[in-house]
Amino acid sequence: MMRATKRLNPLDWTFLAAETRESMMHVGALMPFSMPPDAPADWLRGLMDEVRAEARAFAPWNLKLRHPQLIAHPRQAWVEDAHFDVEYHVRRSALPAPGDERELGILVSRLHSHAIDFHRPPWEVHFIEGLEGGRFAMYFKVHHALVDGYTGIQLLSHSLAHTPEARDTPLFFARATAARTPTAAWRAPTLEALLGVLREQFGSTRNVIKALAKTLSAKNEGLVAPMQAPHSILNRRIGRNRRFATQQFSVAQLKAVARRHDGTLNDVVLALCAGALRRLLRELGALPARPLTAMLPVNIRPKGDPGGGNAVGSILASLATDVDDPGERLRTIIASTRAAKAQLAGMTRSAIMQYSALLMAPLLLSQIPGAVGRVRPAFNLVVSNVPGPTRPLYFRGACMQAYYPLSIPFHGYGLNVTVVSYVDQLNFGFIGCRDTVPHLQRLAVYARAALEELEASS
Amino acid sequence: MMRATKRLNPLDWTFLAAETRESMMHVGALMPFSMPPDAPADWLRGLMDEVRAEARAFAPWNLKLRHPQLIAHPRQAWVEDAHFDVEYHVRRSALPAPGDERELGILVSRLHSHAIDFHRPPWEVHFIEGLEGGRFAMYFKVHHALVDGYTGIQLLSHSLAHTPEARDTPLFFARATAARTPTAAWRAPTLEALLGVLREQFGSTRNVIKALAKTLSAKNEGLVAPMQAPHSILNRRIGRNRRFATQQFSVAQLKAVARRHDGTLNDVVLALCAGALRRLLRELGALPARPLTAMLPVNIRPKGDPGGGNAVGSILASLATDVDDPGERLRTIIASTRAAKAQLAGMTRSAIMQYSALLMAPLLLSQIPGAVGRVRPAFNLVVSNVPGPTRPLYFRGACMQAYYPLSIPFHGYGLNVTVVSYVDQLNFGFIGCRDTVPHLQRLAVYARAALEELEASS
Repeated sequence: MMRATKRLNPLDWTFLAAETRESMMHVGALMPFSMPPDAPADWLRGLMDEVRAEARAFAPWNLKLRHPQLIAHPRQAWVEDAHFDVEYHVRRSALPAPGDERELGILVSRLHSHAIDFHRPPWEVHFIEGLEGGRFAMYFKVHHALVDGYTGIQLLSHSLAHTPEARDTPLFFARATAARTPTAAWRAPTLEALLGVLREQFGSTRNVIKALAKTLSAKNEGLVAPMQAPHSILNRRIGRNRRFATQQFSVAQLKAVARRHDGTLNDVVLALCAGALRRLLRELGALPARPLTAMLPVNIRPKGDPGGGNAVGSILASLATDVDDPGERLRTIIASTRAAKAQLAGMTRSAIMQYSALLMAPLLLSQIPGAVGRVRPAFNLVVSNVPGPTRPLYFRGACMQAYYPLSIPFHGYGLNVTVVSYVDQLNFGFIGCRDTVPHLQRLAVYARAALEELEASS
Repeated sequence: MMRATKRLNPLDWTFLAAETRESMMHVGALMPFSMPPDAPADWLRGLMDEVRAEARAFAPWNLKLRHPQLIAHPRQAWVEDAHFDVEYHVRRSALPAPGDERELGILVSRLHSHAIDFHRPPWEVHFIEGLEGGRFAMYFKVHHALVDGYTGIQLLSHSLAHTPEARDTPLFFARATAARTPTAAWRAPTLEALLGVLREQFGSTRNVIKALAKTLSAKNEGLVAPMQAPHSILNRRIGRNRRFATQQFSVAQLKAVARRHDGTLNDVVLALCAGALRRLLRELGALPARPLTAMLPVNIRPKGDPGGGNAVGSILASLATDVDDPGERLRTIIASTRAAKAQLAGMTRSAIMQYSALLMAPLLLSQIPGAVGRVRPAFNLVVSNVPGPTRPLYFRGACMQAYYPLSIPFHGYGLNVTVVSYVDQLNFGFIGCRDTVPHLQRLAVYARAALEELEASS
């Protein structure tokens, strides 16, 4: 009974081809919830029974690979799973005492370190109980070949309610969705949107990596070669295990800092990452003399744009990790992002797409065995800032407190920082390779300290 | 700082070569503990901190593969891990409410479904809290290439104390051990002992599988070809995920049944498996018309043995799953094991070894891609009965209540039942492939019912 069949597009296929035991191409999200005020002690358990009573899944959540034994099969396709096993996909977990943020981080790091089973629809959702303050958390994971991170946020948040009174909302998988990839998604400044740019450019090409290599070697007029990023511990071959840490900031607080320095919210996001990375790498005796650089997806208005529209591009920004003074560091970052955006603004749409492909290329090329270490990293890490839900969301009366994204560390790019907005907060998800990025949890703590330093600086 | 280096012997190497995403060659154990009577609420947490404070591991627990990127590397070796990361290997977990045996089974199934990280010493131990009755459990897993299941039992139980007063016992990994494989181990009737027989026979042969194939095709005088087992759902290609269920029986109760029918304890073990399997397969509409057969390691005294010594052989026994009456089913099993043992007793040691190799061969040969399904299974499952600790064991005042083994499902052999004795109890561990052996948990329940039927039967 496998009805639906859908060939994978070349870019989705690339995410399967890049999957290895160490470098896994799934993304995730962690969402803590407060309990409804009237919840009985066994509320979560009853809710789980209800969720699992729904044995049917709608597309894309019911799709599995036609050739699970050879995931990079050249004629790979999505087919319907005739034996959808809801107990496999919807799971219960619990935290050991005291159930604090540290224990939550450890459990989610562990869950995210396990490979997807390609013999089933490639996603799981875990309801985690035992979180201090009587709360629970949802951890969601999906392979990028099925659903990208930004679409995942959209599908998940659209499935939640806007009021605590809506008590019968089905969970995302048990809900028919509109088109898989809303048009708007391709306009948001996300890593996925950038990959969408690549897809537009290489859509007809089966071998995306080969096409990228061609782009890389071509002499493109008007394009600036990527900065030569310094070698760092962030840019090594990665292992299988992950560490994950989170931090939440008030948008208003960050905007106040931005205003004071005539920068953007995203400049302050970069400055928090920069402050945290500088401190951690110094402690590890591993701070490069030259500044770390970040690749970030941004919205830009290309040259000759009739107005109103925007396009997605990627820029390289200096994180000014060689600068000791926090205020001066932020100003250096602002100057760097401004120059990069000005450069994009002077380019045509087609040039922007080629330029973005050029910047993205190393990320995918580095997945070729043996490539890492021989070539200089094109940048040191990706920092992605993604728009999230603007209104509070509820699941059967429980209020979602945060939405922390888990993106993909790649060979050669062992740390990823992705930021998602939620109502009036910015949620940071730091995800890294357990072996090559030691003490990653400190980044979350140091990012908070970096904000305090910025607020105290002139 | 990699000092120790040790080439793998051919059989250990075979367990690495057979490792795939679906067919994983690690074994495990689940041990529930009662809390010490005087334990404060945060006792387990404090104990974990103490265990993790021990940053040093002794051999074999500090050994990792020299070539983790290619685990079947022809010159694979064990080397010391210079960066032993105790927090990776010793973990905390918790059960969701109500923390009953079902939730414990689900968590352990899940933990056992995750592949070993070969970039580190290939073992993990999990302390699981939230078990009902104020108890906790230890779940231990290790790759068979490092430590086989029987040696694992020995190393673990030797590291525990015999009195509740001994409160400073180090955990197994922090304790220097004697020889890796005590001589006695090779005499116990275990799957490992049988593999040891293969090792003796093929010790000088790098390619054990090729040597086995040669044995299989050879005409060995005096050897009886394996029975042709019926095709069954137990004998298909397996998936990645596991289900695990446990059951505990009183040795005295089982021996009373055995005495009444003039059989052995092990005959009753087989009858419990037979009763459970017959009922489950009937419910699934999947009971073969011909009886299922089990392969089991046994102690035998070979022909011409001077006496006193014994040897390990393997026999095929009918599980008489075509027989409806429980008493008659047990008597058929007894007749079958008696005939098989009599046959072994008439053979020389060398012939027994060749015969055992012949019986074991399909298990390893079936790991070759494409082999399963084309050839008839040589038997339907392995049922292994292993001697365990004879005195109660304690870990810092906490009493071990049971020791449940987790053995290896293979391609073509999706269910394994291993039984370990502990003081006056027999502990059954049912481990199977989640997809090909559905509703495996019922086997544990039905084994209990099978005992009641036997006690009521004439």
